[in-house]
Amino acid sequence: MMVIGSGASHLREEIESLGVDLGKVEIRKFPDGEKYVRVLSFGEEATVVQSTYKPQDENILEALILGDALRESGFDRLRLVVPYLAYSRQDRVTKEGEPVSVRAVMRALGLYYDELYVVDVHNPKTLRFFPGKAVNLSPARAIAEYFREKLGEGIVLAPDKGARERAKAVAEKLGLEFSHFEKKRISPTEVQMRPVDIEVEGRNVLIVDDIISTGGTMIKAANLLRDMGAGKVFVAATHGVFAEGAIERVSEAVDELAVTNTIPTPVSKISIVPDIVKL
Amino acid sequence: MMVIGSGASHLREEIESLGVDLGKVEIRKFPDGEKYVRVLSFGEEATVVQSTYKPQDENILEALILGDALRESGFDRLRLVVPYLAYSRQDRVTKEGEPVSVRAVMRALGLYYDELYVVDVHNPKTLRFFPGKAVNLSPARAIAEYFREKLGEGIVLAPDKGARERAKAVAEKLGLEFSHFEKKRISPTEVQMRPVDIEVEGRNVLIVDDIISTGGTMIKAANLLRDMGAGKVFVAATHGVFAEGAIERVSEAVDELAVTNTIPTPVSKISIVPDIVKL
Repeated sequence: MMVIGSGASHLREEIESLGVDLGKVEIRKFPDGEKYVRVLSFGEEATVVQSTYKPQDENILEALILGDALRESGFDRLRLVVPYLAYSRQDRVTKEGEPVSVRAVMRALGLYYDELYVVDVHNPKTLRFFPGKAVNLSPARAIAEYFREKLGEGIVLAPDKGARERAKAVAEKLGLEFSHFEKKRISPTEVQMRPVDIEVEGRNVLIVDDIISTGGTMIKAANLLRDMGAGKVFVAATHGVFAEGAIERVSEAVDELAVTNTIPTPVSKISIVPDIVKL
Repeated sequence: MMVIGSGASHLREEIESLGVDLGKVEIRKFPDGEKYVRVLSFGEEATVVQSTYKPQDENILEALILGDALRESGFDRLRLVVPYLAYSRQDRVTKEGEPVSVRAVMRALGLYYDELYVVDVHNPKTLRFFPGKAVNLSPARAIAEYFREKLGEGIVLAPDKGARERAKAVAEKLGLEFSHFEKKRISPTEVQMRPVDIEVEGRNVLIVDDIISTGGTMIKAANLLRDMGAGKVFVAATHGVFAEGAIERVSEAVDELAVTNTIPTPVSKISIVPDIVKL
Protein backbone atom coordinates (compact mmCIF):
# COMPACT_ATOMS: atom_id res chain seq x y z
CA MET A 1 0.00 0.00 0.00
CA MET A 2 1.00 3.63 -0.37
CA VAL A 3 0.92 6.13 2.50
CA ILE A 4 0.88 9.90 1.92
CA GLY A 5 2.72 12.13 4.41
CA SER A 6 1.85 15.77 5.12
CA GLY A 7 4.55 16.97 2.73
CA ALA A 8 2.96 15.07 -0.15
CA SER A 9 -0.69 15.82 0.55
CA HIS A 10 -0.82 17.99 -2.58
CA LEU A 11 -0.18 14.84 -4.64
CA ARG A 12 -2.93 12.73 -3.04
CA GLU A 13 -5.71 13.48 -5.50
CA GLU A 14 -3.64 12.65 -8.57
CA ILE A 15 -2.21 9.51 -6.98
CA GLU A 16 -5.73 8.33 -6.11
CA SER A 17 -6.97 9.13 -9.62
CA LEU A 18 -4.37 6.71 -10.97
CA GLY A 19 -5.98 3.88 -9.01
CA VAL A 20 -3.33 3.47 -6.31
CA ASP A 21 -4.31 1.68 -3.08
CA LEU A 22 -3.81 4.35 -0.41
CA GLY A 23 -3.35 3.29 3.20
CA LYS A 24 -5.18 5.29 5.87
CA VAL A 25 -3.13 7.27 8.36
CA GLU A 26 -4.02 9.87 10.95
CA ILE A 27 -1.55 12.76 11.13
CA ARG A 28 -1.94 15.72 13.46
CA LYS A 29 -0.10 17.85 15.99
CA PHE A 30 -0.39 17.91 19.74
CA PRO A 31 -0.94 21.37 21.27
CA ASP A 32 2.77 21.54 22.20
CA GLY A 33 3.74 21.12 18.54
CA GLU A 34 4.73 17.45 18.58
CA LYS A 35 3.63 15.47 15.57
CA TYR A 36 1.31 12.50 16.12
CA VAL A 37 0.79 9.79 13.53
CA ARG A 38 -1.26 6.62 13.55
CA VAL A 39 -1.43 3.98 10.85
CA LEU A 40 -4.94 2.67 10.22
CA SER A 41 -4.27 0.19 7.42
CA PHE A 42 -2.09 -2.86 7.79
CA GLY A 43 -0.03 -5.16 5.64
CA GLU A 44 3.52 -6.25 4.94
CA GLU A 45 4.84 -3.71 2.46
CA ALA A 46 4.32 0.02 2.34
CA THR A 47 5.58 2.91 0.26
CA VAL A 48 5.56 6.21 2.12
CA VAL A 49 5.48 9.34 -0.06
CA GLN A 50 6.82 12.35 1.81
CA SER A 51 8.22 15.54 0.32
CA THR A 52 10.46 17.51 2.67
CA TYR A 53 10.10 21.13 1.69
CA LYS A 54 9.41 23.76 4.37
CA PRO A 55 8.78 23.01 7.24
CA GLN A 56 11.45 20.54 6.22
CA ASP A 57 12.47 19.34 9.67
CA GLU A 58 8.86 18.53 10.59
CA ASN A 59 8.44 16.60 7.38
CA ILE A 60 11.64 14.64 8.01
CA LEU A 61 10.61 13.79 11.59
CA GLU A 62 7.18 12.78 10.37
CA ALA A 63 8.77 10.34 7.93
CA LEU A 64 10.71 8.83 10.84
CA ILE A 65 7.74 8.36 13.15
CA LEU A 66 5.61 7.07 10.25
CA GLY A 67 8.38 4.53 9.69
CA ASP A 68 8.34 3.64 13.38
CA ALA A 69 4.55 3.22 13.37
CA LEU A 70 4.67 1.01 10.26
CA ARG A 71 7.43 -1.20 11.68
CA GLU A 72 5.62 -1.41 15.03
CA SER A 73 2.47 -2.45 13.14
CA GLY A 74 4.24 -5.36 11.49
CA PHE A 75 5.22 -4.00 8.07
CA ASP A 76 8.47 -5.62 7.12
CA ARG A 77 9.33 -3.88 3.85
CA LEU A 78 9.26 -0.09 3.73
CA ARG A 79 10.03 2.17 0.81
CA LEU A 80 10.24 5.93 1.03
CA VAL A 81 9.63 8.20 -1.94
CA VAL A 82 10.90 11.74 -1.38
CA PRO A 83 9.86 14.07 -4.22
CA TYR A 84 11.98 16.91 -2.77
CA LEU A 85 14.79 16.06 -0.39
CA ALA A 86 15.66 18.85 2.04
CA TYR A 87 19.32 19.48 2.80
CA SER A 88 20.33 17.94 -0.56
CA ARG A 89 22.45 21.01 -1.38
CA GLN A 90 24.42 20.63 1.85
CA ASP A 91 26.26 17.77 0.19
CA ARG A 92 29.90 18.60 0.86
CA VAL A 93 32.17 20.43 3.27
CA THR A 94 33.17 23.71 1.64
CA LYS A 95 34.48 25.32 4.83
CA GLU A 96 36.15 23.41 7.65
CA GLY A 97 33.70 22.63 10.42
CA GLU A 98 30.65 22.22 8.22
CA PRO A 99 28.46 19.12 8.26
CA VAL A 100 27.34 17.09 5.26
CA SER A 101 23.77 17.67 6.34
CA VAL A 102 22.20 15.49 3.64
CA ARG A 103 24.18 12.58 5.07
CA ALA A 104 22.55 13.06 8.48
CA VAL A 105 19.11 13.09 6.88
CA MET A 106 19.75 9.99 4.76
CA ARG A 107 21.23 8.06 7.67
CA ALA A 108 18.22 8.89 9.86
CA LEU A 109 15.76 7.83 7.15
CA GLY A 110 17.78 4.64 6.74
CA LEU A 111 16.87 3.64 10.31
CA TYR A 112 13.36 2.80 9.12
CA TYR A 113 13.30 2.46 5.35
CA ASP A 114 14.76 -0.27 3.18
CA GLU A 115 14.62 1.69 -0.04
CA LEU A 116 14.77 5.38 -0.84
CA TYR A 117 13.60 7.07 -4.04
CA VAL A 118 14.43 10.74 -4.46
CA VAL A 119 13.31 12.82 -7.42
CA ASP A 120 16.30 14.55 -9.04
CA VAL A 121 18.55 14.69 -6.01
CA HIS A 122 20.98 17.61 -6.20
CA ASN A 123 24.07 15.41 -6.09
CA PRO A 124 23.36 11.76 -6.98
CA LYS A 125 26.58 10.70 -5.25
CA THR A 126 24.98 11.55 -1.90
CA LEU A 127 22.60 8.60 -2.31
CA ARG A 128 25.40 6.40 -1.04
CA PHE A 129 24.84 7.85 2.45
CA PHE A 130 21.56 5.93 2.58
CA PRO A 131 22.27 2.50 4.03
CA GLY A 132 19.80 0.62 1.79
CA LYS A 133 18.93 0.79 -1.89
CA ALA A 134 18.73 4.41 -3.02
CA VAL A 135 17.50 5.51 -6.43
CA ASN A 136 17.45 8.86 -8.20
CA LEU A 137 14.22 9.40 -10.14
CA SER A 138 14.65 11.47 -13.28
CA PRO A 139 12.11 14.20 -14.01
CA ALA A 140 13.14 14.14 -17.70
CA ARG A 141 10.01 12.35 -18.94
CA ALA A 142 7.70 14.77 -17.17
CA ILE A 143 9.58 17.90 -18.24
CA ALA A 144 10.00 16.70 -21.83
CA GLU A 145 6.31 15.87 -22.23
CA TYR A 146 5.22 19.22 -20.82
CA PHE A 147 7.44 21.23 -23.20
CA ARG A 148 7.37 18.94 -26.31
CA GLU A 149 4.88 20.97 -28.35
CA LYS A 150 5.87 24.41 -27.04
CA LEU A 151 9.53 23.79 -27.81
CA GLY A 152 9.06 22.25 -31.28
CA GLU A 153 12.40 21.95 -33.06
CA GLY A 154 14.18 23.94 -30.36
CA ILE A 155 17.12 23.13 -28.14
CA VAL A 156 17.71 22.31 -24.46
CA LEU A 157 20.32 24.11 -22.37
CA ALA A 158 21.70 23.64 -18.89
CA PRO A 159 22.53 26.87 -17.00
CA ASP A 160 25.95 25.45 -16.07
CA LYS A 161 28.10 22.44 -16.74
CA GLY A 162 26.94 20.73 -13.55
CA ALA A 163 23.38 20.53 -14.87
CA ARG A 164 24.41 19.27 -18.32
CA GLU A 165 23.22 15.71 -17.67
CA ARG A 166 19.78 17.05 -16.81
CA ALA A 167 19.56 18.95 -20.12
CA LYS A 168 20.82 15.90 -21.96
CA ALA A 169 18.16 13.63 -20.43
CA VAL A 170 15.34 15.98 -21.44
CA ALA A 171 16.81 16.56 -24.93
CA GLU A 172 17.11 12.84 -25.57
CA LYS A 173 13.45 12.30 -24.71
CA LEU A 174 12.62 14.97 -27.32
CA GLY A 175 15.23 14.05 -29.92
CA LEU A 176 16.68 17.55 -29.75
CA GLU A 177 20.14 19.11 -29.48
CA PHE A 178 21.46 20.17 -26.09
CA SER A 179 24.33 22.05 -24.53
CA HIS A 180 25.20 24.11 -21.46
CA PHE A 181 26.21 27.64 -20.52
CA GLU A 182 29.76 28.28 -19.52
CA LYS A 183 30.81 31.15 -17.30
CA LYS A 184 33.84 33.22 -18.18
CA ARG A 185 35.27 35.88 -15.90
CA ILE A 186 35.83 38.92 -18.11
CA SER A 187 36.82 41.34 -15.34
CA PRO A 188 37.30 41.13 -11.55
CA THR A 189 33.63 41.95 -11.07
CA GLU A 190 31.97 40.64 -14.21
CA VAL A 191 31.22 37.10 -15.37
CA GLN A 192 29.99 36.46 -18.88
CA MET A 193 27.79 33.47 -19.71
CA ARG A 194 27.56 31.89 -23.12
CA PRO A 195 26.08 28.69 -24.53
CA VAL A 196 28.79 26.27 -25.66
CA ASP A 197 28.95 25.10 -29.30
CA ILE A 198 25.29 25.41 -30.22
CA GLU A 199 23.31 27.60 -32.59
CA VAL A 200 20.72 29.66 -30.72
CA GLU A 201 19.46 32.21 -33.23
CA GLY A 202 15.89 31.70 -34.30
CA ARG A 203 15.44 28.58 -32.15
CA ASN A 204 13.22 28.05 -29.15
CA VAL A 205 15.21 27.24 -26.02
CA LEU A 206 14.34 25.32 -22.88
CA ILE A 207 16.71 25.94 -19.95
CA VAL A 208 16.63 23.09 -17.41
CA ASP A 209 17.97 22.93 -13.86
CA ASP A 210 17.23 20.96 -10.71
CA ILE A 211 16.42 23.80 -8.33
CA ILE A 212 15.40 27.42 -8.82
CA SER A 213 15.77 29.60 -5.74
CA THR A 214 16.46 33.27 -6.52
CA GLY A 215 16.25 32.65 -10.27
CA GLY A 216 19.14 35.05 -10.91
CA THR A 217 21.09 32.68 -13.17
CA MET A 218 17.99 31.76 -15.15
CA ILE A 219 17.15 35.43 -15.75
CA LYS A 220 20.71 36.19 -16.88
CA ALA A 221 20.67 33.22 -19.23
CA ALA A 222 17.29 34.16 -20.67
CA ASN A 223 18.33 37.78 -21.31
CA LEU A 224 21.49 36.59 -23.02
CA LEU A 225 19.51 34.23 -25.25
CA ARG A 226 17.21 37.07 -26.32
CA ASP A 227 20.24 39.21 -27.17
CA MET A 228 21.51 36.35 -29.29
CA GLY A 229 18.26 36.22 -31.22
CA ALA A 230 16.72 33.10 -29.72
CA GLY A 231 13.05 32.32 -30.35
CA LYS A 232 10.89 31.55 -27.32
CA VAL A 233 12.72 31.00 -24.02
CA PHE A 234 11.29 28.51 -21.54
CA VAL A 235 12.60 27.72 -18.09
CA ALA A 236 11.99 24.41 -16.30
CA ALA A 237 13.25 23.06 -13.01
CA THR A 238 12.45 20.03 -10.92
CA HIS A 239 12.18 21.77 -7.57
CA GLY A 240 10.69 25.24 -7.14
CA VAL A 241 12.43 26.34 -3.94
CA PHE A 242 11.57 29.92 -4.80
CA ALA A 243 12.90 32.87 -2.83
CA GLU A 244 10.48 35.75 -2.21
CA GLY A 245 9.48 37.30 -5.56
CA ALA A 246 11.48 34.84 -7.66
CA ILE A 247 8.48 33.37 -9.48
CA GLU A 248 7.44 36.84 -10.65
CA ARG A 249 10.94 37.91 -11.67
CA VAL A 250 11.67 34.75 -13.66
CA SER A 251 8.19 34.71 -15.22
CA GLU A 252 8.67 38.26 -16.51
CA ALA A 253 12.03 37.40 -18.05
CA VAL A 254 10.92 34.31 -19.99
CA ASP A 255 8.06 33.03 -22.15
CA GLU A 256 7.11 30.39 -19.62
CA LEU A 257 8.36 29.13 -16.27
CA ALA A 258 7.28 25.68 -15.12
CA VAL A 259 8.49 23.40 -12.34
CA THR A 260 7.39 19.96 -11.22
CA ASN A 261 5.10 19.28 -8.29
CA THR A 262 7.78 17.89 -5.97
CA ILE A 263 7.07 21.15 -4.11
CA PRO A 264 3.66 22.79 -4.51
CA THR A 265 4.03 26.29 -6.00
CA PRO A 266 1.85 28.40 -8.33
CA VAL A 267 3.99 27.22 -11.29
CA SER A 268 4.18 23.51 -10.37
CA LYS A 269 2.54 22.56 -13.66
CA ILE A 270 4.56 19.42 -14.39
CA SER A 271 3.58 16.25 -12.58
CA ILE A 272 6.03 13.59 -11.43
CA VAL A 273 3.18 11.48 -10.01
CA PRO A 274 3.12 9.05 -13.00
CA ASP A 275 6.80 8.30 -12.34
CA ILE A 276 6.12 7.66 -8.64
CA VAL A 277 3.09 5.41 -8.93
CA LYS A 278 4.78 3.03 -11.35
CA LEU A 279 7.64 2.26 -8.92
CA MET B 1 34.63 21.26 25.04
CA MET B 2 30.92 22.07 25.34
CA VAL B 3 28.78 23.25 22.43
CA ILE B 4 25.47 25.04 22.94
CA GLY B 5 22.67 24.40 20.42
CA SER B 6 19.86 26.85 19.63
CA GLY B 7 17.51 25.07 22.03
CA ALA B 8 19.91 25.65 24.93
CA SER B 9 20.95 29.22 24.16
CA HIS B 10 19.04 30.41 27.24
CA LEU B 11 21.52 28.44 29.37
CA ARG B 12 24.66 29.87 27.77
CA GLU B 13 25.26 32.71 30.18
CA GLU B 14 25.00 30.56 33.29
CA ILE B 15 27.14 27.81 31.77
CA GLU B 16 29.83 30.36 30.89
CA SER B 17 29.64 31.91 34.36
CA LEU B 18 30.58 28.50 35.78
CA GLY B 19 33.84 28.58 33.86
CA VAL B 20 33.02 25.98 31.21
CA ASP B 21 35.10 25.94 28.01
CA LEU B 22 32.53 26.68 25.32
CA GLY B 23 33.29 25.72 21.73
CA LYS B 24 32.40 28.20 19.02
CA VAL B 25 29.72 27.27 16.51
CA GLU B 26 27.88 29.21 13.86
CA ILE B 27 24.18 28.35 13.64
CA ARG B 28 21.76 30.04 11.26
CA LYS B 29 19.05 29.32 8.72
CA PHE B 30 19.17 29.54 4.96
CA PRO B 31 16.40 31.61 3.35
CA ASP B 32 14.53 28.40 2.45
CA GLY B 33 14.39 27.39 6.14
CA GLU B 34 17.18 24.82 6.18
CA LYS B 35 19.41 24.95 9.22
CA TYR B 36 23.13 25.60 8.70
CA VAL B 37 25.74 24.85 11.32
CA ARG B 38 29.49 25.18 11.36
CA VAL B 39 31.89 24.17 14.10
CA LEU B 40 34.68 26.70 14.72
CA SER B 41 36.52 25.00 17.58
CA PHE B 42 38.22 21.65 17.27
CA GLY B 43 39.28 18.79 19.50
CA GLU B 44 38.56 15.16 20.27
CA GLU B 45 35.68 15.21 22.72
CA ALA B 46 32.62 17.39 22.77
CA THR B 47 29.46 17.68 24.79
CA VAL B 48 26.56 19.19 22.87
CA VAL B 49 23.81 20.75 24.98
CA GLN B 50 20.54 20.92 23.08
CA SER B 51 17.05 21.19 24.52
CA THR B 52 14.29 20.08 22.16
CA TYR B 53 11.23 22.11 23.06
CA LYS B 54 9.27 23.91 20.33
CA PRO B 55 10.24 24.05 17.47
CA GLN B 56 11.18 20.54 18.57
CA ASP B 57 11.81 19.01 15.15
CA GLU B 58 14.21 21.81 14.21
CA ASN B 59 16.09 21.36 17.45
CA ILE B 60 16.35 17.60 16.90
CA LEU B 61 17.62 18.05 13.31
CA GLU B 62 20.09 20.64 14.52
CA ALA B 63 21.49 18.14 17.03
CA LEU B 64 21.95 15.67 14.17
CA ILE B 65 23.78 18.04 11.84
CA LEU B 66 25.87 19.38 14.73
CA GLY B 67 26.83 15.77 15.37
CA ASP B 68 27.69 15.32 11.70
CA ALA B 69 29.82 18.48 11.67
CA LEU B 70 31.68 17.40 14.82
CA ARG B 71 32.37 13.90 13.47
CA GLU B 72 33.44 15.34 10.12
CA SER B 73 35.79 17.69 11.99
CA GLY B 74 37.54 14.82 13.72
CA PHE B 75 35.84 14.64 17.13
CA ASP B 76 35.76 11.01 18.14
CA ARG B 77 33.77 11.12 21.36
CA LEU B 78 30.45 12.95 21.43
CA ARG B 79 28.05 13.39 24.33
CA LEU B 80 24.62 14.92 24.03
CA VAL B 81 22.86 16.59 26.94
CA VAL B 82 19.15 17.09 26.33
CA PRO B 83 17.54 19.16 29.09
CA TYR B 84 14.06 18.58 27.62
CA LEU B 85 13.53 15.65 25.30
CA ALA B 86 10.68 16.11 22.84
CA TYR B 87 8.42 13.15 22.10
CA SER B 88 9.29 11.63 25.50
CA ARG B 89 5.58 11.19 26.29
CA GLN B 90 5.03 9.20 23.09
CA ASP B 91 6.68 6.27 24.82
CA ARG B 92 4.27 3.42 24.18
CA VAL B 93 1.62 2.20 21.77
CA THR B 94 -1.76 2.88 23.34
CA LYS B 95 -3.76 2.39 20.13
CA GLU B 96 -2.82 -0.03 17.37
CA GLY B 97 -0.94 1.72 14.57
CA GLU B 98 0.82 4.28 16.76
CA PRO B 99 4.58 4.78 16.76
CA VAL B 100 6.85 4.89 19.78
CA SER B 101 8.01 8.31 18.65
CA VAL B 102 10.63 8.74 21.36
CA ARG B 103 12.31 5.59 20.02
CA ALA B 104 12.68 7.20 16.58
CA VAL B 105 14.25 10.30 18.14
CA MET B 106 16.65 8.33 20.33
CA ARG B 107 17.70 6.07 17.48
CA ALA B 108 18.40 9.07 15.24
CA LEU B 109 20.45 10.81 17.95
CA GLY B 110 22.33 7.55 18.42
CA LEU B 111 23.68 7.83 14.87
CA TYR B 112 26.03 10.57 16.03
CA TYR B 113 26.32 10.54 19.81
CA ASP B 114 28.05 8.00 22.05
CA GLU B 115 26.34 9.10 25.25
CA LEU B 116 22.99 10.70 25.96
CA TYR B 117 22.00 12.59 29.12
CA VAL B 118 18.36 13.56 29.47
CA VAL B 119 17.01 15.60 32.36
CA ASP B 120 14.07 13.78 33.99
CA VAL B 121 12.93 11.79 30.98
CA HIS B 122 9.21 11.00 31.15
CA ASN B 123 9.74 7.24 31.13
CA PRO B 124 13.28 6.19 32.06
CA LYS B 125 12.72 2.81 30.39
CA THR B 126 12.78 4.55 27.01
CA LEU B 127 16.48 5.29 27.46
CA ARG B 128 17.15 1.75 26.27
CA PHE B 129 16.18 2.89 22.75
CA PHE B 130 19.38 4.90 22.60
CA PRO B 131 22.11 2.63 21.24
CA GLY B 132 24.90 3.99 23.48
CA LYS B 133 25.11 4.90 27.15
CA ALA B 134 21.99 6.78 28.21
CA VAL B 135 21.53 8.46 31.57
CA ASN B 136 18.58 10.09 33.30
CA LEU B 137 19.58 13.26 35.18
CA SER B 138 17.51 13.91 38.28
CA PRO B 139 16.27 17.44 38.93
CA ALA B 140 15.82 16.59 42.60
CA ARG B 141 18.84 18.56 43.84
CA ALA B 142 17.77 21.70 41.99
CA ILE B 143 14.12 21.51 43.03
CA ALA B 144 14.96 20.66 46.64
CA GLU B 145 17.40 23.55 47.00
CA TYR B 146 14.96 26.05 45.52
CA PHE B 147 12.14 25.07 47.89
CA ARG B 148 14.15 24.14 51.02
CA GLU B 149 13.48 27.33 52.98
CA LYS B 150 10.02 28.02 51.63
CA LEU B 151 8.85 24.50 52.45
CA GLY B 152 10.39 24.29 55.94
CA GLU B 153 9.07 21.24 57.79
CA GLY B 154 6.52 20.52 55.07
CA ILE B 155 5.90 17.46 52.90
CA VAL B 156 6.39 16.49 49.27
CA LEU B 157 3.61 14.96 47.18
CA ALA B 158 3.41 13.46 43.72
CA PRO B 159 0.19 14.18 41.80
CA ASP B 160 -0.13 10.48 40.93
CA LYS B 161 1.52 7.16 41.69
CA GLY B 162 3.62 7.35 38.50
CA ALA B 163 5.43 10.46 39.79
CA ARG B 164 6.02 9.02 43.27
CA GLU B 165 9.73 8.39 42.69
CA ARG B 166 10.16 12.06 41.74
CA ALA B 167 8.55 13.20 45.01
CA LYS B 168 10.65 10.70 46.93
CA ALA B 169 13.91 11.96 45.41
CA VAL B 170 13.12 15.58 46.35
CA ALA B 171 11.89 14.62 49.83
CA GLU B 172 15.03 12.66 50.53
CA LYS B 173 17.23 15.64 49.64
CA LEU B 174 15.23 17.65 52.17
CA GLY B 175 14.81 14.97 54.84
CA LEU B 176 11.02 15.32 54.62
CA GLU B 177 8.05 12.97 54.36
CA PHE B 178 6.53 12.22 50.98
CA SER B 179 3.54 10.50 49.44
CA HIS B 180 1.35 10.63 46.34
CA PHE B 181 -2.24 11.35 45.38
CA GLU B 182 -4.45 8.47 44.41
CA LYS B 183 -7.45 8.83 42.14
CA LYS B 184 -10.67 7.10 43.02
CA ARG B 185 -13.67 7.03 40.70
CA ILE B 186 -16.64 7.99 42.88
CA SER B 187 -19.22 8.16 40.08
CA PRO B 188 -19.22 7.56 36.32
CA THR B 189 -18.23 11.18 35.74
CA GLU B 190 -16.35 12.10 38.90
CA VAL B 191 -12.90 11.17 40.10
CA GLN B 192 -11.78 12.02 43.62
CA MET B 193 -8.12 12.63 44.46
CA ARG B 194 -6.64 12.16 47.87
CA PRO B 195 -3.13 12.04 49.33
CA VAL B 196 -2.28 8.55 50.55
CA ASP B 197 -1.35 7.94 54.22
CA ILE B 198 0.07 11.34 55.10
CA GLU B 199 -0.97 14.17 57.38
CA VAL B 200 -1.58 17.38 55.43
CA GLU B 201 -3.28 19.71 57.90
CA GLY B 202 -1.16 22.68 58.89
CA ARG B 203 1.82 21.60 56.81
CA ASN B 204 3.35 23.24 53.79
CA VAL B 205 3.18 21.03 50.70
CA LEU B 206 5.30 20.83 47.56
CA ILE B 207 3.69 18.95 44.67
CA VAL B 208 6.27 17.66 42.20
CA ASP B 209 5.82 16.31 38.66
CA ASP B 210 7.95 15.98 35.55
CA ILE B 211 5.81 17.96 33.10
CA ILE B 212 3.09 20.55 33.51
CA SER B 213 1.04 21.19 30.41
CA THR B 214 -2.55 22.27 31.11
CA GLY B 215 -1.93 22.25 34.87
CA GLY B 216 -5.41 20.83 35.51
CA THR B 217 -4.25 18.06 37.84
CA MET B 218 -2.02 20.42 39.81
CA ILE B 219 -4.89 22.88 40.33
CA LYS B 220 -7.22 20.11 41.49
CA ALA B 221 -4.59 18.82 43.90
CA ALA B 222 -3.88 22.29 45.27
CA ASN B 223 -7.56 23.05 45.85
CA LEU B 224 -8.00 19.74 47.64
CA LEU B 225 -5.00 20.45 49.89
CA ARG B 226 -6.47 23.83 50.86
CA ASP B 227 -9.79 22.16 51.71
CA MET B 228 -7.85 19.75 53.88
CA GLY B 229 -6.26 22.63 55.79
CA ALA B 230 -2.74 22.51 54.34
CA GLY B 231 -0.35 25.39 54.88
CA LYS B 232 1.33 26.88 51.84
CA VAL B 233 1.01 24.94 48.60
CA PHE B 234 3.92 25.00 46.14
CA VAL B 235 4.03 23.39 42.72
CA ALA B 236 7.25 22.35 40.99
CA ALA B 237 7.90 20.54 37.75
CA THR B 238 10.98 19.79 35.72
CA HIS B 239 9.60 20.75 32.33
CA GLY B 240 7.24 23.68 31.81
CA VAL B 241 5.48 22.58 28.60
CA PHE B 242 2.71 25.00 29.40
CA ALA B 243 -0.49 25.16 27.37
CA GLU B 244 -1.91 28.63 26.68
CA GLY B 245 -2.85 30.33 29.97
CA ALA B 246 -1.63 27.44 32.15
CA ILE B 247 1.04 29.48 33.96
CA GLU B 248 -1.57 32.04 35.04
CA ARG B 249 -4.16 29.43 36.07
CA VAL B 250 -1.72 27.39 38.16
CA SER B 251 -0.09 30.49 39.68
CA GLU B 252 -3.47 31.72 40.88
CA ALA B 253 -4.28 28.39 42.50
CA VAL B 254 -1.05 27.99 44.49
CA ASP B 255 1.39 29.97 46.62
CA GLU B 256 4.19 29.53 44.12
CA LEU B 257 4.77 27.76 40.83
CA ALA B 258 8.35 27.09 39.73
CA VAL B 259 9.82 24.89 37.01
CA THR B 260 13.39 24.24 35.94
CA ASN B 261 15.09 25.88 32.99
CA THR B 262 15.09 22.82 30.73
CA ILE B 263 12.56 24.91 28.80
CA PRO B 264 12.70 28.71 29.13
CA THR B 265 9.41 30.04 30.56
CA PRO B 266 8.52 33.00 32.80
CA VAL B 267 8.54 30.62 35.81
CA SER B 268 11.75 28.72 34.98
CA LYS B 269 13.32 29.79 38.25
CA ILE B 270 15.14 26.56 39.08
CA SER B 271 18.42 25.92 37.32
CA ILE B 272 19.65 22.50 36.24
CA VAL B 273 22.87 24.01 34.85
CA PRO B 274 25.01 22.99 37.86
CA ASP B 275 23.98 19.36 37.26
CA ILE B 276 24.89 19.60 33.58
CA VAL B 277 28.30 21.24 33.88
CA LYS B 278 29.56 18.69 36.36
CA LEU B 279 28.96 15.75 33.98
